[in-house]
Amino acid sequence: MTQSIGFTDIDFERTGKQVGFLNLPSSVHDDAWGVVRVPLAVIRNGTGPTVILQGGNHGDEYEGPIVLGELIRDLAPEHINGRLIIVPAINTPAVEAARRVSPLDGLNFNRTFPGDPLGSITQQLSAYVNDVLFPLADAFVDLHSGGSSLSIIPSAIVEPAEDAELAGRIRAAVRAFGAPMTVVISNFGDPRTSTASAVRAGLVTVGTEMAGTGTVSPEAVRICRDGVRNVLVHLGVLEDEVAPASGAAGDMLYAIAGPRSYVMATQAGVFEPYQDLGAAVSAGQPAGRIHFLTDPQRTPEELVHGADGIVYGRRHPGRVKPGNCCVVVASKCEDRS
Amino acid sequence: MTQSIGFTDIDFERTGKQVGFLNLPSSVHDDAWGVVRVPLAVIRNGTGPTVILQGGNHGDEYEGPIVLGELIRDLAPEHINGRLIIVPAINTPAVEAARRVSPLDGLNFNRTFPGDPLGSITQQLSAYVNDVLFPLADAFVDLHSGGSSLSIIPSAIVEPAEDAELAGRIRAAVRAFGAPMTVVISNFGDPRTSTASAVRAGLVTVGTEMAGTGTVSPEAVRICRDGVRNVLVHLGVLEDEVAPASGAAGDMLYAIAGPRSYVMATQAGVFEPYQDLGAAVSAGQPAGRIHFLTDPQRTPEELVHGADGIVYGRRHPGRVKPGNCCVVVASKCEDRS
Amino acid sequence: MTQSIGFTDIDFERTGKQVGFLNLPSSVHDDAWGVVRVPLAVIRNGTGPTVILQGGNHGDEYEGPIVLGELIRDLAPEHINGRLIIVPAINTPAVEAARRVSPLDGLNFNRTFPGDPLGSITQQLSAYVNDVLFPLADAFVDLHSGGSSLSIIPSAIVEPAEDAELAGRIRAAVRAFGAPMTVVISNFGDPRTSTASAVRAGLVTVGTEMAGTGTVSPEAVRICRDGVRNVLVHLGVLEDEVAPASGAAGDMLYAIAGPRSYVMATQAGVFEPYQDLGAAVSAGQPAGRIHFLTDPQRTPEELVHGADGIVYGRRHPGRVKPGNCCVVVASKCEDRS
Amino acid sequence: MTQSIGFTDIDFERTGKQVGFLNLPSSVHDDAWGVVRVPLAVIRNGTGPTVILQGGNHGDEYEGPIVLGELIRDLAPEHINGRLIIVPAINTPAVEAARRVSPLDGLNFNRTFPGDPLGSITQQLSAYVNDVLFPLADAFVDLHSGGSSLSIIPSAIVEPAEDAELAGRIRAAVRAFGAPMTVVISNFGDPRTSTASAVRAGLVTVGTEMAGTGTVSPEAVRICRDGVRNVLVHLGVLEDEVAPASGAAGDMLYAIAGPRSYVMATQAGVFEPYQDLGAAVSAGQPAGRIHFLTDPQRTPEELVHGADGIVYGRRHPGRVKPGNCCVVVASKCEDRS
Amino acid sequence: MTQSIGFTDIDFERTGKQVGFLNLPSSVHDDAWGVVRVPLAVIRNGTGPTVILQGGNHGDEYEGPIVLGELIRDLAPEHINGRLIIVPAINTPAVEAARRVSPLDGLNFNRTFPGDPLGSITQQLSAYVNDVLFPLADAFVDLHSGGSSLSIIPSAIVEPAEDAELAGRIRAAVRAFGAPMTVVISNFGDPRTSTASAVRAGLVTVGTEMAGTGTVSPEAVRICRDGVRNVLVHLGVLEDEVAPASGAAGDMLYAIAGPRSYVMATQAGVFEPYQDLGAAVSAGQPAGRIHFLTDPQRTPEELVHGADGIVYGRRHPGRVKPGNCCVVVASKCEDRS
Amino acid sequence: MTQSIGFTDIDFERTGKQVGFLNLPSSVHDDAWGVVRVPLAVIRNGTGPTVILQGGNHGDEYEGPIVLGELIRDLAPEHINGRLIIVPAINTPAVEAARRVSPLDGLNFNRTFPGDPLGSITQQLSAYVNDVLFPLADAFVDLHSGGSSLSIIPSAIVEPAEDAELAGRIRAAVRAFGAPMTVVISNFGDPRTSTASAVRAGLVTVGTEMAGTGTVSPEAVRICRDGVRNVLVHLGVLEDEVAPASGAAGDMLYAIAGPRSYVMATQAGVFEPYQDLGAAVSAGQPAGRIHFLTDPQRTPEELVHGADGIVYGRRHPGRVKPGNCCVVVASKCEDRS
Repeated sequence: MTQSIGFTDIDFERTGKQVGFLNLPSSVHDDAWGVVRVPLAVIRNGTGPTVILQGGNHGDEYEGPIVLGELIRDLAPEHINGRLIIVPAINTPAVEAARRVSPLDGLNFNRTFPGDPLGSITQQLSAYVNDVLFPLADAFVDLHSGGSSLSIIPSAIVEPAEDAELAGRIRAAVRAFGAPMTVVISNFGDPRTSTASAVRAGLVTVGTEMAGTGTVSPEAVRICRDGVRNVLVHLGVLEDEVAPASGAAGDMLYAIAGPRSYVMATQAGVFEPYQDLGAAVSAGQPAGRIHFLTDPQRTPEELVHGADGIVYGRRHPGRVKPGNCCVVVASKCEDRS
Repeated sequence: MTQSIGFTDIDFERTGKQVGFLNLPSSVHDDAWGVVRVPLAVIRNGTGPTVILQGGNHGDEYEGPIVLGELIRDLAPEHINGRLIIVPAINTPAVEAARRVSPLDGLNFNRTFPGDPLGSITQQLSAYVNDVLFPLADAFVDLHSGGSSLSIIPSAIVEPAEDAELAGRIRAAVRAFGAPMTVVISNFGDPRTSTASAVRAGLVTVGTEMAGTGTVSPEAVRICRDGVRNVLVHLGVLEDEVAPASGAAGDMLYAIAGPRSYVMATQAGVFEPYQDLGAAVSAGQPAGRIHFLTDPQRTPEELVHGADGIVYGRRHPGRVKPGNCCVVVASKCEDRS
Repeated sequence: MTQSIGFTDIDFERTGKQVGFLNLPSSVHDDAWGVVRVPLAVIRNGTGPTVILQGGNHGDEYEGPIVLGELIRDLAPEHINGRLIIVPAINTPAVEAARRVSPLDGLNFNRTFPGDPLGSITQQLSAYVNDVLFPLADAFVDLHSGGSSLSIIPSAIVEPAEDAELAGRIRAAVRAFGAPMTVVISNFGDPRTSTASAVRAGLVTVGTEMAGTGTVSPEAVRICRDGVRNVLVHLGVLEDEVAPASGAAGDMLYAIAGPRSYVMATQAGVFEPYQDLGAAVSAGQPAGRIHFLTDPQRTPEELVHGADGIVYGRRHPGRVKPGNCCVVVASKCEDRS
Repeated sequence: MTQSIGFTDIDFERTGKQVGFLNLPSSVHDDAWGVVRVPLAVIRNGTGPTVILQGGNHGDEYEGPIVLGELIRDLAPEHINGRLIIVPAINTPAVEAARRVSPLDGLNFNRTFPGDPLGSITQQLSAYVNDVLFPLADAFVDLHSGGSSLSIIPSAIVEPAEDAELAGRIRAAVRAFGAPMTVVISNFGDPRTSTASAVRAGLVTVGTEMAGTGTVSPEAVRICRDGVRNVLVHLGVLEDEVAPASGAAGDMLYAIAGPRSYVMATQAGVFEPYQDLGAAVSAGQPAGRIHFLTDPQRTPEELVHGADGIVYGRRHPGRVKPGNCCVVVASKCEDRS
Repeated sequence: MTQSIGFTDIDFERTGKQVGFLNLPSSVHDDAWGVVRVPLAVIRNGTGPTVILQGGNHGDEYEGPIVLGELIRDLAPEHINGRLIIVPAINTPAVEAARRVSPLDGLNFNRTFPGDPLGSITQQLSAYVNDVLFPLADAFVDLHSGGSSLSIIPSAIVEPAEDAELAGRIRAAVRAFGAPMTVVISNFGDPRTSTASAVRAGLVTVGTEMAGTGTVSPEAVRICRDGVRNVLVHLGVLEDEVAPASGAAGDMLYAIAGPRSYVMATQAGVFEPYQDLGAAVSAGQPAGRIHFLTDPQRTPEELVHGADGIVYGRRHPGRVKPGNCCVVVASKCEDRS
Repeated sequence: MTQSIGFTDIDFERTGKQVGFLNLPSSVHDDAWGVVRVPLAVIRNGTGPTVILQGGNHGDEYEGPIVLGELIRDLAPEHINGRLIIVPAINTPAVEAARRVSPLDGLNFNRTFPGDPLGSITQQLSAYVNDVLFPLADAFVDLHSGGSSLSIIPSAIVEPAEDAELAGRIRAAVRAFGAPMTVVISNFGDPRTSTASAVRAGLVTVGTEMAGTGTVSPEAVRICRDGVRNVLVHLGVLEDEVAPASGAAGDMLYAIAGPRSYVMATQAGVFEPYQDLGAAVSAGQPAGRIHFLTDPQRTPEELVHGADGIVYGRRHPGRVKPGNCCVVVASKCEDRS
């Protein structure tokens, strides 16, 4: 297999706490011999499992990187049993730019797995996670928020797994997170996400969606902080005296039911939603309308829901163009675990 | 005085309802002999006063244009006594672009008054409002929201007037709006805003700030819809049977007290606020902290409030750089009316 | 084979007329969970062949999309025998942008075949056409115009086929189009075009070039409208009472003879052509000259033809830089059919 | 009066032929101490009048610069009686960029008169023409074409003058050009054009519109070449044995009648015109329709003419957005000369 | 006179050392209510004169800001007699962007004097310096380097003054700087520079050019550090025990003699210089040649000097286009002081 | 193997001198049927070896293209024994843009080997060099300079080869170049460079680094001119009477020892180096410091060397961000040849 040309001063096998960088050589116009530096921390102690904690998959989702930065500053080796590999801002160029996608190659990191160690920088990053980090680990936590375009109910996410036993362990770990909602999301079956890739690698995988809209939600920071610790306690890495007491999530499991769960814009204009997040809706019910602000005589166009459930996510920017996701409905589903 | 080269098919003196456009000739690379078309409606009946209703001063503030579009579609001449000049999207190029400032010349319309009829398009627009529309009117309502960068408590805004009698009439009209808050804002005394210019022209002037963050708030749409009708009833243009019953705003008057009311970012990073909108704060109290996501070992930098009051506005995007406005505090003030 | 993650509400097997969209999930900064929507219509009736009618391969070529939009609005199932799959604007992002190439990934759709179902959006689109649509069809009509940079004599295009029997059927279908000219074009043997891919898939394939220069030619719209109907009659899908009577094209077959048929710019400047489209020229004859407008003392540089034939295409924008195609000559060739 | 900081090696008073540059110091990021170089030629002999010949007012209008470059290379002092000041590419940065407007400051040179000698580069250029060149001259010829966005019937243009005697001399000079059409154009009365400024300075002023669409028309080059020489013969500068024999223009005088002569786009889409240039049309007649290529079920929107006359100009790019000029009609008018 | 809307926490009259910011309100898309923050320090003690030390006039000239930052950190009130107003990065947006001109409005700060307190940000900055700072001061030191495009011999610059007495004091102060060269530069008489404006205000004015090419020269940092202290000692603000011992500059005075001192590029290509900085040259001598790298058969074009003197500055980037300044020659001149 | 669709009028087998172009068809928005033209020369005579001389691998490195242009103009077939394939500006689009990477696809040509004949233009270029040129040749000379971001001691570069015999021949040829330094550089083992690819193809491979900083160094032009001729004499292609006498390089061999040889920026700011090129340094010694120009109270951050050796390269632009290469140290190494 082709190997990454990246290098790091971190020794993944060493006991104790190390904070450093993964360096990917990057030869660009204004820096011929420089590197892209991705912050990386390893805390190792005892014989427990290895857990990768990843933030900054998208560069405009802040709760994960904030909480992982706290962990890096606060945790000492004696607090844990096992190994934490903490990557608080994996897509560093996107985090620096506060953009979902990398400014270096325009790619969405979460659509590049399994990556390419000799590809563009984003492809090199996913290859590093896939080829170097995944083989070291037992579990993977990927902390997302809604990003600049979406407002989402804070929730823990189940990535579907074909293997029933792994699926059960995943579901248990996701429930341990203790989010207000638990949702199964398959991204239309897209195999290029980091969680889909982690599941293929056999890792116990936990995803999240924490509020969003490109801002920092103090409430979502709290949910994320507690949730990460809860998962680490569940996995046996953190001693429970450090873990917070919260996490009384509902029992219900939700899922995005497929294309009909998405209300897509049909016109260019400004979308006015009719329901708040969490509202119960049913198929056929109006979801909002698109206004034509510079053509005030034109009647706004109404959009309707295609599925029964609750309003799980909503577009944040008022401006829409055809195909934009305006509302996402999550439907109740059987928990087969 | 130099005259605008713009033209319109609207006859401001005609009774009845007309919906059309102001056309400003604009000779650009991909349209040598075209125009910028600004939607414009006039509804006239009876002998009451003339009121200008303006939306789209900034192109990413949607509640005003939505409510003014409804008025244009819904109101008939027989509903009113006087003349409504409705400009739902005055900075049409900015509204089309969903940007605060015009994509044509990069200018903030609200920093170009009194304008220039032979200047760039945005300067021509402000000159048209200042030179053509203001002389026709008795009152001016300028509907703002927080825009892409700010989340603001829905509020009606008092533009300070030197003339005490005018100031009193302004304050009465602003209170009639019935917003959850009433705030005096002087923009550091900047004379280039449309409301400062309207006050200089002797018009009864009402401003607003409706939520913001570049999205459409259904709640703010309702406040804005009721408020505009309340003001029109207050001014005697609308019959009260059309006006809604709401509008029980608090009695308190607030003001932005000056530079110390603004919490400005001191570093580049991601800002995490500590208080929600409406929280009471006092000078010296921490307001939030700036995280350095790609340098997790660096301690976040804490920002503190400089004034007593309530959190009136908050930056929406997580990303900040030095000088960005993170929090704005409104302080109680004496109502001298 | 990897499968597309796109979805559609069109059922290709259903009888009757359906108009809808192909939706390709696209996760970008301002729309994390949205789709690219490509308009798609299927009209099915009886037992005739399946024909794909494609427009919008390049986003600045308008005659094809205009004519296919008319067909979608005008044709009813009872008019046809077989199945029409009409894709009037396959590269929707490019059509919206009025650009030859997609603004999403910078790719020329017609250089991406056979595509990649997990690649960038343009690669996904070509994979969808290649993997999903081609297997359903017997014939493929790809409607091009000259685009922003070229003015071309309206013509029907033969894509070379290695299989003699298929080549004969292609030539017959192209001649049925009834364009003013019929030309064999191989694009230097490039295998990445949609017509080259369709021929590899064994489809009877018809191309066109309709005027161009990034405008809409009313005459070319008429030629294109008649030509598409003529081809459908030829293929047995349309009843001849609907087909127009026109289509008396000349018998001559032309071809682009290779690199020497292209007059390429050798300097940066402004090109003045010497001949109009359709003029007969011979190798060695001056084709035009390049002016240096800001260096008026410099003598213009003359370019010469490299082949005998007629002026088939000409660069439209005056500005040229080295390598730009200024003139294309089509030469008479033997029709081996 | 503030003076230009530009300098030139041309001595306007010297007899003979000089070709050089006007140099405007321009201190930009990649050239702190450089200049913008504008080509400039002076040919002087005898006692005849001084005529300014200007091309490149807009950077994408090529016939004028081509013809003036030929004059610079071909004319010798002995050919003339008087003084020619030839500026073939006045807006050099725009000509280099092949854009209507300057890439340096985004300004349309023809909307900056009387200019500002300490303003941006385009304003400095118009100030130089207005303050330095106009006082030296008796006549001014400003050679335009339609540019990238318009196709226009080749025509000579009358700029209205308040002074009847000057107006008469202008009309005589414009007719001497011998273009296929003669049209009065006032640009909605805009005083910022170079011809309006020249008329204010008392110069005999001749404008043109030569084809356009951002290409070079060999036919328009011929019309322009003959017309310039015809005007110079008319003014007594060129000996008639050099002047060509052509120039049998029609007697009719046309004018753009005002806003109703322009057919403006009302929607974003692709415009299909119904008439060719030169067609006679009447108010109320359909002028074309706007197609919605990615929404094929939507009926195209038809536009209608607002004036009687002939189709004088037409938009070239297919793509339109609201306000774009789609068609311009010229109406017959009385020649008061 | 219109007043600036900027504000600062610095009290210019207070004794002691204050470091803070000038804040200019700036209402832009991503920060509606923020400010541009310009670092500002005042150190006051005793009765000596007031000196303004300015760096960052252009954002890619680093020696001045580095040395002024050191002064701010190192100097205590007891070190000085008088008042230092230190503005190390006056054009903060340009300094942050490492560009000569401001990214906010595209303006070169040094071409905007006397500024406009209600203009764009750069115009507001120059108005602040001109209207607020200049009236407080006796002397002004403006620290430039060559910037991204030029390599210049480190030198102290004399801005010409009409008043002979002021001119003498300026020349004495400039000589006190002790640079390797002393040069009179008038920028073609441009009145819009900060030094020209300071001279008009009657201030003893010292300019510099320190190396350049967009890099930091350790040698130039040393020259600049010593020179600033030497000037302050000369003006009586600094005690001489703090001042360094260096500064043995040559006695010769140089000047840029006018347009012929500049060797400007005549073609687009890559410039190869023939002489190093400091070389003696004479008019007519070849200065370098322009290569056409992608047209290797074309003979390079040679440029020649237009003045006698020494090579004082040279273009740094290899790429040139017509009008770029390739070489600047400084000629010996009489010192009339 | 897939074949390039490029074409050329050069016949590689013909004796004599030919200068022409490689043409790669490129279908883009403003030139649908044009080509990218890459200058190419072949000079053949006698029976000696074939040597490829390549310049313009990066578009902002000028010494190689200048020297190769001279060779093309100056050399006649009778001067040589063998075959020279001279490609002075292989990445023509990058050379035209004066950028390290191609403006067409954003790719660094030197990170695209072995290329893709149906990929983007840069990938097609590397495939052409790899698939078409390398099989024709015995030796390959790739002429680099430091480019816009780096200043490097002029040096000849050894690309490591696994085969000892080839490695010996490479080292001999590199030493023959006669540069002031000889350095082994492996680019972190990156296999995508042209020299790594040439070595894999078994060619005697010589690299260079000639000064840099995006300018033309007259001294480096001389070194490069002499070095190329020296290598050609060494390889037996040039008769020694044409070769210059210079080339007395030192005997020492240097190498970049790995990641610790690079001093990388840790903060965003402006870097001030402490040592000049060629200075001897040792691990732990301060290398420079990063200034924070707009935050003058913040202490600059010092960077330290990680290896013993001499300062071989240094970042040129003052502005740095984390990960930028500030200094590169070359360490002495054993010459195993």
